[in-house]
Amino acid sequence: MDVEKKYFSNISFRERAIFEGAISMAALFHQFIGTPVNKKTAKSLEMAISDSLQLQPAIEKVEVSIDLRRVKQANTEFNYVSLSGDMLDVRIHSKINDSIAIVRMEFIEELNYPLMYVEDINTVD
Amino acid sequence: MDVEKKYFSNISFRERAIFEGAISMAALFHQFIGTPVNKKTAKSLEMAISDSLQLQPAIEKVEVSIDLRRVKQANTEFNYVSLSGDMLDVRIHSKINDSIAIVRMEFIEELNYPLMYVEDINTVD
Amino acid sequence: MDVEKKYFSNISFRERAIFEGAISMAALFHQFIGTPVNKKTAKSLEMAISDSLQLQPAIEKVEVSIDLRRVKQANTEFNYVSLSGDMLDVRIHSKINDSIAIVRMEFIEELNYPLMYVEDINTVD
Amino acid sequence: MDVEKKYFSNISFRERAIFEGAISMAALFHQFIGTPVNKKTAKSLEMAISDSLQLQPAIEKVEVSIDLRRVKQANTEFNYVSLSGDMLDVRIHSKINDSIAIVRMEFIEELNYPLMYVEDINTVD
Repeated sequence: MDVEKKYFSNISFRERAIFEGAISMAALFHQFIGTPVNKKTAKSLEMAISDSLQLQPAIEKVEVSIDLRRVKQANTEFNYVSLSGDMLDVRIHSKINDSIAIVRMEFIEELNYPLMYVEDINTVD
Repeated sequence: MDVEKKYFSNISFRERAIFEGAISMAALFHQFIGTPVNKKTAKSLEMAISDSLQLQPAIEKVEVSIDLRRVKQANTEFNYVSLSGDMLDVRIHSKINDSIAIVRMEFIEELNYPLMYVEDINTVD
Repeated sequence: MDVEKKYFSNISFRERAIFEGAISMAALFHQFIGTPVNKKTAKSLEMAISDSLQLQPAIEKVEVSIDLRRVKQANTEFNYVSLSGDMLDVRIHSKINDSIAIVRMEFIEELNYPLMYVEDINTVD
Repeated sequence: MDVEKKYFSNISFRERAIFEGAISMAALFHQFIGTPVNKKTAKSLEMAISDSLQLQPAIEKVEVSIDLRRVKQANTEFNYVSLSGDMLDVRIHSKINDSIAIVRMEFIEELNYPLMYVEDINTVD
């Protein structure tokens, strides 16, 4: 089966780069929110998140940063927290042919919301 | 296969009631934390949580309450929040033979933590 | 803050409809995969999935169908299964201004994969 | 607050070791089921799962093994799979005072089910 032709010929390469980046960003959020984490385990969790999301279609790079200041602020009696959206800053690079999208998630205080948006979208020469 | 005999004969009925209640409580937390919710959708989410967890072994009843005051406090620019542990109050009733456990999760401010514990455990006459 | 202007002026309405639909589809998958389900609880789970995802930005409608034939095929000793991607058929309608995208997820046997793609994208007159 | 006295004095140390092990096992299942994985990323995922669950109360050790044979069997067009219960073999060691429980999850073909049970429970001398 020609997957590209059958399922993706109705959108442009640029649109599909955006589409695939968006999918992986929301996958990341809804898969990993709730995971127990503290400053000792943040690195291995960042690595597993990055490794697993890079497997998805069109994903070239996943940069994940867990904000240890916010982890500390949310700390509990048991010295760990549940990972939440305000602790994450993520950039996902997706590429379809010559179109590269960088989808970003960052917590915006003014919105009290972990906003997902297209930080950059361009064409490789 | 006699599952009871092969896998559960090393613990008492009382212990297994505790075991199964604990499993379903943590399942609930880690499955549903992160779900988008607001006051309009809280009821259908409570119902789906309750229905799905009651399918697990030994679970007789699942009482789920989403705290709308906390949902409101956490509200975002987009009029919904991600379900988090501090918004949940849950009682799960598990029963093995004549032993009934009530496992509770409630957010304890002093611990800043959604504590899971055995609220009651007894024997049906 | 003008969220639209600050974060979304670099993409078209059509592209953002695709973006938001993709986000909600992956959110659905990674939030609800693993939920205990059988034929008795499928309806309340479909409803909670639909209600919760409709809260996300730009989402107009979420049509979720859990395939009871596949639920039955995967049945276990305990008469329920963990929801998996092959059991889901979903259409999400997202709308930004006059652009409407329908994002679809369906299990494609030949790919052994729950494919997410843009089923339709058009402009409302 | 004396958490032990207030919330856990109604069960024995042995019962609480079982309780806490059960919680962490179900947390593991419902947090990580659905994560993209293939043979290249299995190790970092196993490590993050183990690290994060060891943060929970009473957990001493978490041994996680992802079955690469089953990952291969479930492989998709895109060379990765969604982690599912039949791919996991896990032992969680929990300890309360002198009571140690080993909670196990393994996929039992005959039940078509990833069974969680108490593999061993004893008292340290």
